[in-house]
Amino acid sequence: MKIGKITGHVNATAKDAKLVGLKTLIADIVDSDGVVLTPSVVVVDTCGAGVGDTVLIADGSAARIPAATTGAPVDASIVAIVEQIYNSNQINNNKKEK
Amino acid sequence: MKIGKITGHVNATAKDAKLVGLKTLIADIVDSDGVVLTPSVVVVDTCGAGVGDTVLIADGSAARIPAATTGAPVDASIVAIVEQIYNSNQINNNKKEK
Amino acid sequence: MKIGKITGHVNATAKDAKLVGLKTLIADIVDSDGVVLTPSVVVVDTCGAGVGDTVLIADGSAARIPAATTGAPVDASIVAIVEQIYNSNQINNNKKEK
Amino acid sequence: MKIGKITGHVNATAKDAKLVGLKTLIADIVDSDGVVLTPSVVVVDTCGAGVGDTVLIADGSAARIPAATTGAPVDASIVAIVEQIYNSNQINNNKKEK
Amino acid sequence: MKIGKITGHVNATAKDAKLVGLKTLIADIVDSDGVVLTPSVVVVDTCGAGVGDTVLIADGSAARIPAATTGAPVDASIVAIVEQIYNSNQINNNKKEK
Repeated sequence: MKIGKITGHVNATAKDAKLVGLKTLIADIVDSDGVVLTPSVVVVDTCGAGVGDTVLIADGSAARIPAATTGAPVDASIVAIVEQIYNSNQINNNKKEK
Repeated sequence: MKIGKITGHVNATAKDAKLVGLKTLIADIVDSDGVVLTPSVVVVDTCGAGVGDTVLIADGSAARIPAATTGAPVDASIVAIVEQIYNSNQINNNKKEK
Repeated sequence: MKIGKITGHVNATAKDAKLVGLKTLIADIVDSDGVVLTPSVVVVDTCGAGVGDTVLIADGSAARIPAATTGAPVDASIVAIVEQIYNSNQINNNKKEK
Repeated sequence: MKIGKITGHVNATAKDAKLVGLKTLIADIVDSDGVVLTPSVVVVDTCGAGVGDTVLIADGSAARIPAATTGAPVDASIVAIVEQIYNSNQINNNKKEK
Repeated sequence: MKIGKITGHVNATAKDAKLVGLKTLIADIVDSDGVVLTPSVVVVDTCGAGVGDTVLIADGSAARIPAATTGAPVDASIVAIVEQIYNSNQINNNKKEK
């Protein structure tokens, strides 16, 4: 999985029928210090995440294992909201105000 | 999914039989500000998208979940047309004239 | 899919039994102007492509949907030969002499 | 597979039910000399790995073949703990104190 | 598939049961001239390859199609040993002494 930081969301009207009702958020893929590795991935929320949250993102067929996304044309979904990242040398708290 | 901007289309005569009748568009993968991250991905349209549209692109097996692409040798398809991208700091409208 | 330009082919004797009889070509992944993005991908031909052709390449499980590659250990195959690429600002013809 | 070096772990409360009980570690993807190629991949442990270990990481659907991860929304898991890497020119021991 | 050059192998004791008995080699992904594109990918051998060989590597689910790797947590395997690479402008022989 990748570490993601939620930065916004996407609105779409014309879309695949199986995407209706799913929340499509925008995330930057980040390293354990929050440095952006890849910007602007669109992910489907399955955990109640919102802007500012640090999350774990599953890619590929793994993204369709959560009940909310099964059978939908989804290749990336949020499977966890991160509370803390423990590194050898530091601890990063997932604080929205940070 | 990735954010894509449609820039053109591809014509092909010799092709897999299951691709006949599918519209193959060219998209640049962009970030939420429209900056190009990866150019010239070829995607199959399932939403009625055209040049200038901002779209969501599903990769891998997810690309074959829409009815139009099921069973075709397709690894990237358009699953939504984006109307608006909301970021923490800004709002981007999907205007073709932009 | 990706746009590829065929540059050569690969000969192999020791290989998986299900690869026997398949034509393994070398392609550069290019953008719509022909600029190389990724060199030297090995792809299985299913359309009668040859050196100098511009093709569409399907990756992953999509590469095994054409009848010729079903059941073979193939992760990239040619699913179309490109005739023309239409961009907003230009038209690129797939001419071998170019 | 990729060579990974375990650098820490991630704590999450809100998460997919099938992730409960799985250990989510952070790894840097490294080359055979330990040089970081991609930082901060989150991987599920199936081998008893810990911080400082060098491991083999399987991506995609392969990550869900170990019994511990089958059916969970996991796209990267540890499938082996590396003892030694033999290169043409050198031998790297997997020593935690290194 | 990708072109790989075998540079060594990996020893592991703690590993998934289905990996026992499989030979895990290290390869650099190279272009058709042998220039390294991505170093240190770990691949399972299914063709009798060794250090110095140029090989074709299949990624993803394709890596588990050879009989030797079916059912194992493997995301990259050797599906052919390359004898010669023919490019438009040159011929590269796969000589171990090169």
